Order: sequence, then structure tokens, then C-alpha cells
Amino acid sequence: MIQTNWTRLIRFVAEETSEVHIGQPVDPNQDVGLAYNRKEPIKAHAIYGTALSPSALVSDKVLTVKELLSPLARDEIRLVRCLGLNYADHAAEANMPKPVAPILFYKPSSSIIGPNAHINIPKVAQPVEKHIPDYEVELTVVMGRPCKNVSEADALDYVLGYVTGNDTSFRYHQLAVSQWGFSKGFDDATPIGPCLVAASAISDPQNLPLKTYVNGTLLQDGTTADQIFNIRQTISYLSQGTTLEPGSLIMTGTPKGVGFVRKPPIYLKHGDIVHVWIGGGLGTLINPVVEEGKADGHRSAKL
Amino acid sequence: MIQTNWTRLIRFVAEETSEVHIGQPVDPNQDVGLAYNRKEPIKAHAIYGTALSPSALVSDKVLTVKELLSPLARDEIRLVRCLGLNYADHAAEANMPKPVAPILFYKPSSSIIGPNAHINIPKVAQPVEKHIPDYEVELTVVMGRPCKNVSEADALDYVLGYVTGNDTSFRYHQLAVSQWGFSKGFDDATPIGPCLVAASAISDPQNLPLKTYVNGTLLQDGTTADQIFNIRQTISYLSQGTTLEPGSLIMTGTPKGVGFVRKPPIYLKHGDIVHVWIGGGLGTLINPVVEEGKADGHRSAKL
Repeated sequence: MIQTNWTRLIRFVAEETSEVHIGQPVDPNQDVGLAYNRKEPIKAHAIYGTALSPSALVSDKVLTVKELLSPLARDEIRLVRCLGLNYADHAAEANMPKPVAPILFYKPSSSIIGPNAHINIPKVAQPVEKHIPDYEVELTVVMGRPCKNVSEADALDYVLGYVTGNDTSFRYHQLAVSQWGFSKGFDDATPIGPCLVAASAISDPQNLPLKTYVNGTLLQDGTTADQIFNIRQTISYLSQGTTLEPGSLIMTGTPKGVGFVRKPPIYLKHGDIVHVWIGGGLGTLINPVVEEGKADGHRSAKL
Repeated sequence: MIQTNWTRLIRFVAEETSEVHIGQPVDPNQDVGLAYNRKEPIKAHAIYGTALSPSALVSDKVLTVKELLSPLARDEIRLVRCLGLNYADHAAEANMPKPVAPILFYKPSSSIIGPNAHINIPKVAQPVEKHIPDYEVELTVVMGRPCKNVSEADALDYVLGYVTGNDTSFRYHQLAVSQWGFSKGFDDATPIGPCLVAASAISDPQNLPLKTYVNGTLLQDGTTADQIFNIRQTISYLSQGTTLEPGSLIMTGTPKGVGFVRKPPIYLKHGDIVHVWIGGGLGTLINPVVEEGKADGHRSAKL
């Protein structure tokens, strides 16, 4: 297991300095995503070093969060790997066969956004009634050491930590073309945050509850215990012949409850507010939805 | 169009310094990939700056190539985008429908290798008779400026240059699972090189011949004129809602002649030598094939 001096890491612009810092929330029980959204104060001990450096050190210096960012910067994230159909109940609702091996696809790191940033529905995915923008809460693994051909037994030794993620998806393009790369890769389509929780602080990553709310309505309510390929199996499988680099993410699939399979379908639209939440201290990730080109977009969706 | 001071760029370790440089071959007609493989001398004018910097300058200083590398380093390549089935004759031979929109998938930059480096067939893709490792010559576009929602008319303004690429593929995994990410992403599965040719030096990227030879036998012999989605259309399409970052690559698909559809199938195996070649001065990219774990791998495949 990767040992870190921090147990929960956030990245933010500080009131005191107007600069970007990483830090550890002073209150170990605070859901910083919720607090930020409610404009409650968030204090954090500055961490010296980078999120990916094992020598990063939590200091006594306390800073105040002015703007909360994704816990890793885009430049720190080499690549986002995602699993498709990794919960049996989701494969069933999507009317797709349970996979015999992990179904891997990628999202570009240019699609990453942080807490409270807007999920943008681009023109190419409008009108929403046709394109069905959709939410997918996903336990997201952050790799901390280069890893290749690792056994299931050793796989978790390479995990730096875990973060809440939302694999925002656009169903029309996804289902109209055989490969999912285009439909999953739009800018602003991969919110992550608020906290990167150290692997050492998660006693069992296969026993985490995860939920999605849209405009306050609970739509996904699952547990990572239901993953078809658990995290050890996933890392071991993906590392075959392939180096998983530090700072790369693995989004481990979503449980049932997505919008496009519902009757009638639920789709994200301008002004919606999406909450995704994972237990174990990973916390709540809140993002408003805007449709590109709507003049009042940023105003009406403002939290 | 992006204007560069160089027209052909290589990256190499120099005899004189034992350090990594970029440079422009002194002989404008030399196929540096062929010359390197035949151990013929290659001289280059050192370029000051980086491949992705518009201010990079060709100097009078002449260096001698000791080791030829991929023209862009892995760290300079943010992401590799690839088109599937972008030549009608290839879609037909693969018995797949002609796509109605560009089929986008990704390869991780960790899969990039340069001239003469080994294409590694990992244990997970052995035995080769079952897994059918395969070659795909592809005209590879290097993006030079951030690009989003660009029109077809303006698309080439964002292209830095072109390079020969080989989208090495492993057919068993590709066809056994719906998404191609795993099968296309192994380390050493994306040779590129030898030369990055400036966009300004290619009068028509839709009129370039491209060929593959395995052990000297011609197996692919096409032209970029046969692309279903040409480069302007591809860039414009992929940039919808999505930032194409400088240093990202777009591999634009392969013409007919790949191995897995032949009767009997042709597959890459230990000791094979793959040449892919594209006209317009992009040149020949040569890579020996090794199967991981074969004791004499590096010896027998040495060029």
C-alpha cells in the first residue's frame, strides 16, 4: 500500500494567497463538496509537495478555501480509463450482456472538471431530448506508482487513493457509433472530487455506497460490493502488457439507475443540478448543467 | 496553417553529445528510417526549441544521429486519437459497415515507440496464432494549436505536421470485447516516425501513398485519397465540444491489406520485421517484433 502523510486531499485557491494549494481539510468529518456548495467555511492544512509525490507533507499552516478545484490538475492526469457495464444490475437495465472481461474505454484528461464547475452540453449533443445527456456515479481509482503485469494480490499496492467521479455520457452518440470515445470525451464531461482519499484510509473499497441525485431526486443507489470485476481484478487485468502510469485514473463503472433506460428516459438539461456521492469520506460532488449557447446558462445554473 | 522554421523534424541521441536533440536532416531527400536501419550516417541541423513550439529554430550546428527516437517524446503526446474503418476497402475486407460518422477510439501515449524499437507481443496476447497481432499503416496528424469547434475550412490551420504511424492491433482481444481500448493499448503498440514533416511541406495530405511490408512482402498498398472522412472532416468532427490539444495525435485509419482478414490469416510473430511507409517525405518506419518471454527475443530480432 502507498503510504501518504495525508489521508484526505483537496486542491483549492486560498483566500489568504489567491494561489492554488493542496491541503487536508481540518475537520475530518466535513463533506467539503457539500460545504463548498452551501458556502460554509472550509479550512485546510496546507500540504507541501504534490498530490502524486509520496513525500508530500501536511503542515500546520491553515488556509481558507476560496475556490474548490478538482483534487488533481488536468496536467497531473495522464489518462482516464473507464470500465463499461461493471455492475450486473446496470448491464441488465441497459439490456447488454454481462461482460466476460473488463470493457475498457478512455476519456481524455481534457474532459476533467472539479466541484461546482459546469457540466457543459455542447451543441453537438443538443437537443437534449434526442441526445440524452446522462449521469454515472463511479468510484474512481487514482494510480500512484507505475504498474505493469501486477497480480490481483498485489494490485492495491499501486493505488494512491480514491475519488468520487461522474462519467457524464451522451447516449445518442454512444449508441449510434460502435466505439464510445467521441460520446464520452467532450470537454467538461468528467467531474471528479471533492476529496482524494488516501488508499490507507479506505479499509474496504468494495464496500462503499454510491448515489446520484438530480435536482434532489435519488436516481442511483448502489454499492461497490456489486462490481462484476472488483478493483484488484480490474487493475491486474488492465496492467497486462500495459503500464498504468501514476496520475492515471480508473473509473470503475456505475450501478443501475442511469437515465437513458428509464421509461420515460431522464436526461440532463440546462439548469439541472447533479449530486454524486460516495461514502468513506470521498464525499459529494455537485455540478450544475448548462447547455452551450443558452444565454442565461451561467446565471440560472449558479449555485 | 502553422508556420515552422523546420520542414522535417527528427529526435535523436547525438554521437557528439550523447544527449537527446531535435534536428532537421541535412539531406532533404534522405529516408532517415531506412538509413538508420542500414546504419548509414544521418546528419541533422540541430533545432533549438521544442517540436511543439512555433518559435523552434533550425541552426547551422550539424549533429550525427547515434540513436533515432520517435519525433515526439511520450510526455509531449497528450493522447492518441484513432479512427476505425476509415477506408472503404478496409471496412469491406473486415466485413464491417462503412461508418456513418468517424469511429473514434484512443491509444494511451504509453504505447508510443520510435524507429527500430521492438513491437512487443505481451504474454496476454500470446499465442500469436490465436491473438493475431496485426499491422496498420496510418497517416498520423500532429495537432499544433488548441482546437475546438473548428470548421472543415479552417481545420488544417491547427495541424503542426504529419508522421508515419503503425496502429499495431491484437485481434483476439479487439473482437472478443466490444470496446477496443484494451486490445489497442499495450505498451510498444504504437510505433511512430521517423520524421515529423511540417504541414507546410505537404501540399495535399489526401494524396499520399502508404504501404506496409512484413519481412519484405508488400501487404498494404493504399492512398490517403481513399479515406472516407478526410483530415479536414475528421478534425472538424472530433473538435465538436472537445478541445484537441497541441501534441495530441490523430491516426487516420488504415487501408485494406491487414493480416487478420486474410485466408489464411497473417499475424505478426517473433522475429518479424515490419516496414510501414508513407510518401511526402514522411518515410519508412521499421520495427522488429518480439514475443515477450522468448529468451532470444532481442538478439534474433536485432536489425
